Amino acid sequence: MTFRTHHCGALRKTEIGTKVILSGWIHRRRDHGGLIFIDLRDKFGLTQIVFDPKYSKTAHQEAENLRSEWVIRIEGEVIPRAEGMKNPKMATGEIEIAVHSLKVLSKAKTPPFSISDDEIQVNEELRLKYRYLDIRRGDILKKLEVRHRAMQATRQFLSANEFIEVNTPLLAKSTPEGSRDYLVPSRLSPGQFYALPQSPQLFKQILMVAGMDRYFQIAPCLRDEDLRANRQPEFTQIDIEMSFGEPQDLFPIIEELMKAIFKTCLGVDVPTPFRQMTYDACMEQYGTDKPDLRFGMPLVNLSDIAERSTFAVFKEQLASGGIVKGLCVKQGQDISRKGIDGYTEFVGQLGVRGLAWMKRDGDGVLSSNIVKFFSTELQNELIQKMGIEKGDLIFMIADSKEKTNQALDHLRRKIARDRNLNSSKHYEFLWVTDFPLFQWNSDEKRIESEHHPFVQPHKEDLHMLLTEPLKVRSSSYDLVLNGHETASGSQRIHDGELQQKIFEVLKLTPDQLKERFGFFVEALSYGTPPHLGIGLGFDRIIMVLTETENIRDVIAFPKSSKASDLMTEAPSSVDPTQLEELKISIDTKKTVWT
Amino acid sequence: MTFRTHHCGALRKTEIGTKVILSGWIHRRRDHGGLIFIDLRDKFGLTQIVFDPKYSKTAHQEAENLRSEWVIRIEGEVIPRAEGMKNPKMATGEIEIAVHSLKVLSKAKTPPFSISDDEIQVNEELRLKYRYLDIRRGDILKKLEVRHRAMQATRQFLSANEFIEVNTPLLAKSTPEGSRDYLVPSRLSPGQFYALPQSPQLFKQILMVAGMDRYFQIAPCLRDEDLRANRQPEFTQIDIEMSFGEPQDLFPIIEELMKAIFKTCLGVDVPTPFRQMTYDACMEQYGTDKPDLRFGMPLVNLSDIAERSTFAVFKEQLASGGIVKGLCVKQGQDISRKGIDGYTEFVGQLGVRGLAWMKRDGDGVLSSNIVKFFSTELQNELIQKMGIEKGDLIFMIADSKEKTNQALDHLRRKIARDRNLNSSKHYEFLWVTDFPLFQWNSDEKRIESEHHPFVQPHKEDLHMLLTEPLKVRSSSYDLVLNGHETASGSQRIHDGELQQKIFEVLKLTPDQLKERFGFFVEALSYGTPPHLGIGLGFDRIIMVLTETENIRDVIAFPKSSKASDLMTEAPSSVDPTQLEELKISIDTKKTVWT
Repeated sequence: MTFRTHHCGALRKTEIGTKVILSGWIHRRRDHGGLIFIDLRDKFGLTQIVFDPKYSKTAHQEAENLRSEWVIRIEGEVIPRAEGMKNPKMATGEIEIAVHSLKVLSKAKTPPFSISDDEIQVNEELRLKYRYLDIRRGDILKKLEVRHRAMQATRQFLSANEFIEVNTPLLAKSTPEGSRDYLVPSRLSPGQFYALPQSPQLFKQILMVAGMDRYFQIAPCLRDEDLRANRQPEFTQIDIEMSFGEPQDLFPIIEELMKAIFKTCLGVDVPTPFRQMTYDACMEQYGTDKPDLRFGMPLVNLSDIAERSTFAVFKEQLASGGIVKGLCVKQGQDISRKGIDGYTEFVGQLGVRGLAWMKRDGDGVLSSNIVKFFSTELQNELIQKMGIEKGDLIFMIADSKEKTNQALDHLRRKIARDRNLNSSKHYEFLWVTDFPLFQWNSDEKRIESEHHPFVQPHKEDLHMLLTEPLKVRSSSYDLVLNGHETASGSQRIHDGELQQKIFEVLKLTPDQLKERFGFFVEALSYGTPPHLGIGLGFDRIIMVLTETENIRDVIAFPKSSKASDLMTEAPSSVDPTQLEELKISIDTKKTVWT
Repeated sequence: MTFRTHHCGALRKTEIGTKVILSGWIHRRRDHGGLIFIDLRDKFGLTQIVFDPKYSKTAHQEAENLRSEWVIRIEGEVIPRAEGMKNPKMATGEIEIAVHSLKVLSKAKTPPFSISDDEIQVNEELRLKYRYLDIRRGDILKKLEVRHRAMQATRQFLSANEFIEVNTPLLAKSTPEGSRDYLVPSRLSPGQFYALPQSPQLFKQILMVAGMDRYFQIAPCLRDEDLRANRQPEFTQIDIEMSFGEPQDLFPIIEELMKAIFKTCLGVDVPTPFRQMTYDACMEQYGTDKPDLRFGMPLVNLSDIAERSTFAVFKEQLASGGIVKGLCVKQGQDISRKGIDGYTEFVGQLGVRGLAWMKRDGDGVLSSNIVKFFSTELQNELIQKMGIEKGDLIFMIADSKEKTNQALDHLRRKIARDRNLNSSKHYEFLWVTDFPLFQWNSDEKRIESEHHPFVQPHKEDLHMLLTEPLKVRSSSYDLVLNGHETASGSQRIHDGELQQKIFEVLKLTPDQLKERFGFFVEALSYGTPPHLGIGLGFDRIIMVLTETENIRDVIAFPKSSKASDLMTEAPSSVDPTQLEELKISIDTKKTVWT
């Protein structure tokens, strides 16, 4: 049987007079004085079909029984809509189909929520349980199509640039670093476990050792974390590694890749090259390593000015090792006292005790309850340093460096939201480079790698590796898009002696080393090319492309916040024989039923 | 640092005089009277580099220390090779590089097997342990590149044909049907488990219910089976589903897809359309549902002739319900008595008691130890029916239908191997259609689905569904390539009432139904379009494209026959705290250490 000669979005007035076959779902149905009008829907659009006894008595009679979401097949003829009945908002709005015969392909129960309404009011749990109906509504389907186009654009671009797509194993080895692994019990090796990959990190570096030169994969990654908002246990990473290169070789490739994705999916030309800032400069200017550059409002260090003021609150903080920083809201004079109080409360929730402010009025004069603590000279210095223009408002915070940065970063983003400075159709990319190589784990009182022990230290800092390791920067980089970390990567160590030094700093014993990274260190000892790589958060990119803040909107079958699939009801209990075969048992004594 | 201006396979005599930078591995090294010649290797090829004190004393001195597989970077000038030293077999064979400076990028231990030898003699276990070195040897790397090209060709073709690539979940629901699932214990729902997908079957049908219209995925699939040769616990499937179509709509798409893959990867034009045979015809003519059509030798039913002979062995088999079938080896007269004995032994191992044979000599006369049991008339009938020409040899087997078919299928393929009729560069596709819908499970004394309960019965057999279900054919199809099942699929049921009938035949109680397929049957009840699909064995296709019989050759990091990754040593034991978090324990009492 031929189910269709055309999609439901295809017919135009040029096809008037054509005999057609259409199949689809009954979207809406209207009875008008003996005529039955149905909007027939498929993925490609809607077409109005008309049952009129004049065209076919039988079909008209059968159409009486049709209900929403039934799937039908019709044969008929394309006819013009009557004048006044045309619908210019609909691609097929100038025509309709005079139905000559009807076949019901499958009936439908009444859906738990409407498919044809533009807005959906039910809670997300119900939408996830009936995910197939939610997708059928069209909005998520369109996002999945964008995801598809982005995947193909990625693959085409990287393939054209000599990157080879390699699928790395899902049944991998559990490593004690990083987040919590999902484990898979082995039946053939009882008592042993595979781990699902958190990322293909080790495999992709091994592919460089193997001489693959350039690798990529749109890789499924899995982490058994307590789910925060917008996290999923399964997520997708554009995973890239290349040999015989350094960041200046990789950055243009990633920039062109983003250009290709944005052009394919949105028709938008992203300007390149992207801006670059070091981690230190980022923290200084924005208080965060992922600044949103769709708007200005950089942070300005005001400690030296505050030091010379007579404002006790500032001076006390400075005396106890804190800092004073501020930001300037352009034309912020419209922010009322109540508004200022709101921001004060907002930063209070982040743990800072106060929010100082000043306005510069139309005469150029600064005013606020603390202006009096600043001499005219200091006020002028402040105006200069922060670029305060007439009508601007500044906020200042004095606290520890960490708290001040954190609070001003949040405040800056909140103000941007409140003042609509963060358009979702505006794309600001930024490379943040030179992150610290190590961090201090204050719980375990030891130095640990900021990312992993295979990140290349910054060339200029090599002399401090054994003496002042916490000051050593790394050859690492994040790609930030509109304030979100969108990609992260690093140059890897390819020199065995340097690698040994890193292990020394980390105080790894040979046994620990063998247990954690044995096979990998062995692999690196057979001739490792210089190499570097990056992993791009694919779901996040699709969220930006489709202007959603909900990661579940860009994944076909997402998990709930409890990592459940509400549609299939996974996870579920399994047959005891399955566990017997795996030689594992459920530890009921300790089981907490949640 | 710039690591290279050219790949190691790039330079030709047109570049003579150019200053270049190359990086790569030391492939081979030869010292000739004060000169050091090195073949420098990367993925793209080999370039000969020359250390001569004349060009640089320092570099020449440093080069003394270089060893195989070290990674180096050199700067130098492209110069012509001396006459008589050119190597026409090498793409870069007309030039060499006069090295001006050398930098060792990383040293290498002596590999456990040679990278530069053409042949590798070590056992596969060692190759899998040092997979990165085996890949570096080049042969597997080239196969992985073919795999990459086939993936991209697949995606481009299907994307251009309105198929949307959707990633379905890895953490899925365990279903009791099919092979054994890999289970993943849930931490957030203690005592419950996810299953890794054996295929995205249910999800892809759900996507059709969701209105996706056309879906594909190059999907990882996992099955916890006892591994036979050429099986892997993780394998890859080109997974396809489409709505509003029937096999005649799908077949041309799959044929064009195969055409695109073979053209992209091999430059070969696969002729289309592919041949089609029903399951019944296949079993009759080839004794198997996956015949290798690179060669002829169809099976011929000779029961009626045997019946009229006086050969007791044949007549006894027929009397006890067996059959007699034969095949004709064209110009098989060269097969000696010893050869015939070998084939007799071969089929004996398959459980049949004898192999009858006849030769037709140059005069057209049949000869063999059993010719005397056949009248001249019967001999002529035999010659006609089997198309026996002068010089041909026929084999005949009498046994039960199943055993006869099985033995002749194996014999046919063995003869083809022995006579080199099965060129690995020759590609014969065949659609096998109309498989039985059900099969009889003689262990459990019940009817079960041949594939799964959602396969559409053959239209012409619907009337037998409740009365003679085992006679009902299904609307299903396999794609066979050179005797291997390469794809399998079916039209799915979209009509709720028909679906209920199938469940009746399978004698599923409502409770069983709910437990096994609850959410899926629910999904099908909200308006299911007619749909059908197919899954193509991607690894198998790559094996054919790369002419290997070893599935591990086409997977970057394959598992051993015990499902272990010998390189990373997965599976492995894990930290007891990880198991505590999952509320599972290893059942040591029952543990059998294998």
